[in-house]
Amino acid sequence: MTRSATVQANDRPTALRSSLDSSVTEIVEAALADFLAERRVMAGAIDAQFADAIRALDEFVLGGGKRIRPTFAWWGWRGAGGEPDAPEADAVVRAIGALELVQACALIHDDLMDGSATRRGRPTVHIEFAARHRSAGWRGQPDRFGEAAAILLGDLAMCWADDMLRGAGLPADALRRMAQPWDAMRTEVLGGQYLDVLHQATGDGTEHAALQINRYKTAAYTVERPLHLGAAIAGAGPDLVDAYRRFGADVGVAFQLRDDMLGVFGDPDVTGKPAGDDLREGKHTLLLACATKRAEAAGDRAALAVLGQAVGNLDLQPDELDRARDVLLELGAVRAVEQRIAELTESGLDALIGAPIAAPAGDRLAELAIAATRRAR
Amino acid sequence: MTRSATVQANDRPTALRSSLDSSVTEIVEAALADFLAERRVMAGAIDAQFADAIRALDEFVLGGGKRIRPTFAWWGWRGAGGEPDAPEADAVVRAIGALELVQACALIHDDLMDGSATRRGRPTVHIEFAARHRSAGWRGQPDRFGEAAAILLGDLAMCWADDMLRGAGLPADALRRMAQPWDAMRTEVLGGQYLDVLHQATGDGTEHAALQINRYKTAAYTVERPLHLGAAIAGAGPDLVDAYRRFGADVGVAFQLRDDMLGVFGDPDVTGKPAGDDLREGKHTLLLACATKRAEAAGDRAALAVLGQAVGNLDLQPDELDRARDVLLELGAVRAVEQRIAELTESGLDALIGAPIAAPAGDRLAELAIAATRRAR
Repeated sequence: MTRSATVQANDRPTALRSSLDSSVTEIVEAALADFLAERRVMAGAIDAQFADAIRALDEFVLGGGKRIRPTFAWWGWRGAGGEPDAPEADAVVRAIGALELVQACALIHDDLMDGSATRRGRPTVHIEFAARHRSAGWRGQPDRFGEAAAILLGDLAMCWADDMLRGAGLPADALRRMAQPWDAMRTEVLGGQYLDVLHQATGDGTEHAALQINRYKTAAYTVERPLHLGAAIAGAGPDLVDAYRRFGADVGVAFQLRDDMLGVFGDPDVTGKPAGDDLREGKHTLLLACATKRAEAAGDRAALAVLGQAVGNLDLQPDELDRARDVLLELGAVRAVEQRIAELTESGLDALIGAPIAAPAGDRLAELAIAATRRAR
Repeated sequence: MTRSATVQANDRPTALRSSLDSSVTEIVEAALADFLAERRVMAGAIDAQFADAIRALDEFVLGGGKRIRPTFAWWGWRGAGGEPDAPEADAVVRAIGALELVQACALIHDDLMDGSATRRGRPTVHIEFAARHRSAGWRGQPDRFGEAAAILLGDLAMCWADDMLRGAGLPADALRRMAQPWDAMRTEVLGGQYLDVLHQATGDGTEHAALQINRYKTAAYTVERPLHLGAAIAGAGPDLVDAYRRFGADVGVAFQLRDDMLGVFGDPDVTGKPAGDDLREGKHTLLLACATKRAEAAGDRAALAVLGQAVGNLDLQPDELDRARDVLLELGAVRAVEQRIAELTESGLDALIGAPIAAPAGDRLAELAIAATRRAR
């Protein structure tokens, strides 16, 4: 980053500036709200009914989410020398807020592809627009209208992510540097999603396939590239970028493995998702791949039958879920995945040791790694 | 544009440089082929099966199209002082090539939303991937796999459009200037698409609704903003941008009205589309809105019945099509739309008169306007 820039005037009160580190989530949400309000005006100039559709996107983006990607990007920038009281901090907040619009596209399109009816306790976008069609008694099929609206609002979110990033007010050299991680991140997450869909279709339930999805659909997209993006904005050298990427790849996969564990063993009251949802949806997790491999190696047909009955069973009953959980435990798959989470978290944290990270980012990243891999929701 | 840049070394042979004006289409296609080849390598580093899916996108982008948007953008740049033998001409070609990737996303997602089976005589992307699923005997529903692949490949094309534009090698000030038309264009086309879907659902067959779709889904996206983009890259002043936008809005709508005429009266051997396709699909064109309005005003129930039987009739027979054509002619709707095309083309050309356009762009834009509004396919 440009050190000379830090001596320029800054009209935010000192108290607010110094609190940026502890309120990244809120400040990013405020930046998103500002950007979306501007875009709603742009949409309204086209047509009031278009602006009305945009409101659903607003609610989706502003209605929830852990803001994990902007948080990693923020600490990536801070660790590379970015200062919260520097004048460019506002531009950085707007730039990393754009990650939430990429995520909005990913989720809206993912929900459509998966046929998911709810997200965060509310109807998904395609379901919401199908309901509008149905209640208004419009022509044609409500479901097709819902699909079209979800496709177009997802596309819009993806375009607006770029617009928000480029219009954030970053200096030209920062924009040039961040092109590589930004380009890579979007291609990687879409590649990971395609491979996920493909593996589901081909029935590839191997550990290799599960880890590949975790690598691209989660780790690169959620931790590695956001950190890389923050580092690139600040002009970090290759040593720090390399450390961030190794940390991000390992912690990101561990984050996904924790998600997989919660998808089978999580408490619905805490996760907000039905118990055993991943089994019901037939998700190809490492946990399941590991269990299947162990059962096959041991010739344990009974275990394979229990798993076979649970996986992809939309009417999975509580006793069937309990039996599947027991089998996952008995086969040692749970222990193996827990061990993998611990190892990946450890190796991720190791990658930061000796890296040229500005305080307090190293400590914060370590805390985020622990929180992401040990969470209950 | 930066005049000083034109004196820098340029290693392209003079013959090739001076021929750029007459070969924009080919040079843009070469730039797209280069970009996509690089991206296939990037995809291959993720997984060979992902790179394989990308090949379908390659074929879609490189397999056809009139390259009308890059052509308007090129002449927008030329008219604003851009020189084909200037060193930045290569970067401009790459930047305007990105318009074809936006178009790839728009078409792939449009075909999915419309349930279209073919485009340019080949299966659409969702149909192609559903066929791969079916022939390989994979798990789950082939159609859902095809839909997911089309959603993801369209998303990828939209992301890559941005990447190609920003990575084209334009100077930072040109990138800054073109942000506004680029942002507006993508929001406008997605807004136009949403309104199109919405009007189909609500059954809004008014002239106002048809013209609104023509304005945003076609005119802004196909002529007005591409010209504006080229002008912005070259650093054009407000007078020229204003003239381009008025020209683009009028010629763009006239272009769509010609398309609508061809959609009912076009020769299938020339257009490559089935005869009367727009009627069969129930498309809400100005032609149809005008005819309906006239028939209602005249209380001509027989004409309304003929149109009512043809519009949205997937099994439309040749004699029914002939009767609908006769009704459109007899009601004077064809004459009214032809007159509108002529008036819009005229007012579009008028907008260029007196505008500060560098030769030979004014003449070429006039030729393009005539070609776009008088074409037979």
